[in-house]
Amino acid sequence: MSSSATTEVTGQDHVWSVSEHLDDILGSVRPLEPIELQLLDAQGCVLVEDVTVPVSLPPFDNSSMDGYAVRVADIAGASEEFPAVLTVIGDVAAGQGEQPEVGAGQAARIMTGAPLPPGAEAVVPVEWTDGGLGEGPVSGMRAHSAAPEGASGEVRVHRPVEARAHVRARGSDVRAGDRALAAGTVLGAPQIGLLAAIGRGTVKVRPRPRVVVMSTGSELVQPGEELAEGQIFDSNSFALTAAAREAGAIAYRVGAVADDAETLRSTIEDQLIRADLVVTTGGVSVGAYDVVKEALSSGGSAEDGVEDGSGIEFRKLAMQPGKPQGFGSIGPDHTPLLALPGNPVSSYVSFEIFVRPAVRALMGLPDVHRPTARAELAADKALTSPAGKRQFLRGQYDAEAGTVRPVGGAGSHLVAALAHANALIVVPEDTASVEPGADVEVVLLG
Amino acid sequence: MSSSATTEVTGQDHVWSVSEHLDDILGSVRPLEPIELQLLDAQGCVLVEDVTVPVSLPPFDNSSMDGYAVRVADIAGASEEFPAVLTVIGDVAAGQGEQPEVGAGQAARIMTGAPLPPGAEAVVPVEWTDGGLGEGPVSGMRAHSAAPEGASGEVRVHRPVEARAHVRARGSDVRAGDRALAAGTVLGAPQIGLLAAIGRGTVKVRPRPRVVVMSTGSELVQPGEELAEGQIFDSNSFALTAAAREAGAIAYRVGAVADDAETLRSTIEDQLIRADLVVTTGGVSVGAYDVVKEALSSGGSAEDGVEDGSGIEFRKLAMQPGKPQGFGSIGPDHTPLLALPGNPVSSYVSFEIFVRPAVRALMGLPDVHRPTARAELAADKALTSPAGKRQFLRGQYDAEAGTVRPVGGAGSHLVAALAHANALIVVPEDTASVEPGADVEVVLLG
Repeated sequence: MSSSATTEVTGQDHVWSVSEHLDDILGSVRPLEPIELQLLDAQGCVLVEDVTVPVSLPPFDNSSMDGYAVRVADIAGASEEFPAVLTVIGDVAAGQGEQPEVGAGQAARIMTGAPLPPGAEAVVPVEWTDGGLGEGPVSGMRAHSAAPEGASGEVRVHRPVEARAHVRARGSDVRAGDRALAAGTVLGAPQIGLLAAIGRGTVKVRPRPRVVVMSTGSELVQPGEELAEGQIFDSNSFALTAAAREAGAIAYRVGAVADDAETLRSTIEDQLIRADLVVTTGGVSVGAYDVVKEALSSGGSAEDGVEDGSGIEFRKLAMQPGKPQGFGSIGPDHTPLLALPGNPVSSYVSFEIFVRPAVRALMGLPDVHRPTARAELAADKALTSPAGKRQFLRGQYDAEAGTVRPVGGAGSHLVAALAHANALIVVPEDTASVEPGADVEVVLLG
Repeated sequence: MSSSATTEVTGQDHVWSVSEHLDDILGSVRPLEPIELQLLDAQGCVLVEDVTVPVSLPPFDNSSMDGYAVRVADIAGASEEFPAVLTVIGDVAAGQGEQPEVGAGQAARIMTGAPLPPGAEAVVPVEWTDGGLGEGPVSGMRAHSAAPEGASGEVRVHRPVEARAHVRARGSDVRAGDRALAAGTVLGAPQIGLLAAIGRGTVKVRPRPRVVVMSTGSELVQPGEELAEGQIFDSNSFALTAAAREAGAIAYRVGAVADDAETLRSTIEDQLIRADLVVTTGGVSVGAYDVVKEALSSGGSAEDGVEDGSGIEFRKLAMQPGKPQGFGSIGPDHTPLLALPGNPVSSYVSFEIFVRPAVRALMGLPDVHRPTARAELAADKALTSPAGKRQFLRGQYDAEAGTVRPVGGAGSHLVAALAHANALIVVPEDTASVEPGADVEVVLLG
């Protein structure tokens, strides 16, 4: 990043393309250092280690049915008419310490998941027996607490089974030494289930980034308060905090900071302790009260910027909305900072196109971008776009029909239209007009 | 829901289809009562009120550019060669209290978002002026704090503008009395931004449901601890807590409860105070130690169930995995309870098919189901499925290719395979075999 201390008045000659600015951001932002987290705290995070299975699953041969553990020779040829009659020597329940040994002519009542007891070769489902009641086939066992006598007496078996029938073999799911999950896996519910199943209580992942969001502007009032003349409600700090959370971050909303360079600088400095990324809105353009630019360009002078490798560069982008943008790093830890424009639609579009990928890059996620699709433009008239700029229009995408319809106009203040959009329509730099029916690229939001 | 107190041994004749069970759940679960929440606490929730715009946006005519507020007659015919020279009478910054009145031959320096001062008719962008420096066109203003003299002196304007140029009219985004958002809207970042912009600090939504997740089984050990003989790690309470959060719930993981009916009953009773929905795993089948069934069938007897309208019914479903299921309500508030089978894959599939829709129904979300797609079965051999059952196999869906490939087998204990799946392949009840290349339905996970 080059110095920007002298750019306020004369500006920079270079107008950055969307891709150049994004490449600069993604080339600078490094994934966060991994930490060991409790399993459920790691949800949504990226695993940074190959996880090996320490103990085979299941860890022992066990029953896949509620039934009777038997020796197969004892029930060869059994039928409902000529049942095999076995002596029930006890119960084998899951998690029960001792197991009876099943001898010739014997059976142990066994529950799903319980270890196959010594001597037994297979399991007969309870539905293929009389359940020890001496009558016809049953559909289940009576609760042990209500009928403890079920663990003794005789049982009539109505069907033969082969050796290993209804037995889940030790290691049939995963074997000790197998790789359970590869580094780079994003941990969703089934992956967390697998890690728990193999006994992992904690896991090494990249944490969620802490994103500090602040809006700037002396005109901003907290929603719910009274507006005085010339004031508006702060919406950016709310929208972007929500967007940061949706991107996977832990987001802190600082709220609105007045247009005073010293106040802004000290607020940012205060917040750095809990920030992996700072996002500001407003104050980045060519006005005389653009304090973000003022505070961050002059706070570290050009020389400081070179010395410690940090500094924020303010740029003009060939983009609509979102022309003025700032990016760089700040503070002793070189915390990345993105300074977005203050118009609500500009800041939201800028967040989607630049900040969201940065948040996801910090998490180490493999895919940092929103999904895109191609759609047919459903519009009454052609869309016009300034030549040489990449334009992002708000649209309603209909996946079934494969169409997208613009909502609201190109104005960067149309926050109402934005709230009814589910996509951004991308009009490339070399396109000045898009006819109805044309094929366009859309960025799918949410 | 009918009584189930006498079903443990004899079972019920009726085998429920997946659809019947799901219909019963969705027919019983009512959306939670709305509460007023702070905006950012309402993220992801469903709005239950039509929100009307109390004050037009923007609330006053304001500048869309950094530049000069002028009267158009004063700059008619201006060019770089023959600039119009105006007296600068001061600054109009956003959020500044007093505004200068712009008279004939005068201009006020104005910042983006600042109110158009009285007397002015349009805004000339600073780039179309000499910025008061008496030289050529400039690309921006110097910061007011560094150069306060910029708010006085003369400015040369190089281009004329029409009346209202670069002015955003009061009410051009939304007008007071318009409906900003309709009841039923799900609040994402742009909707939260709009609500803030119109001054709403709080909003009435259905809250996220609090879901208590507990697994049952005396064989279960907390991951990270040592396994003794016959024990396995508790994975269900982790996987389902994560899945509940992913569905939108606030989830509490109680962990594993031993197979003792009294302990289970009192644990559930304790948890009811923080539960909008209770999910248990294990203990729902036909074994002699299936304590969930035992505790919840006998705890309220059949008569109690009828009296207070609560009670859990245990069923057999025509489903694989996931045959044994319990559903009903419990406690003084008739809190819904879903009792899932204990096998990790069975419980996860059951969660996806039954619990997730229940969570989303509690939130009042319009679409409670996972998206589905059609895909070509990519397999080396035909898939077989038990006749009369709806089977859910784990699969890797490739959206680009439009194919799905089974991962792992049909076994309900194959938690490793589940962790590598991104879809469930649905084999309908009337299908006993699916050939490679056949068109199948897939449920898209995550």
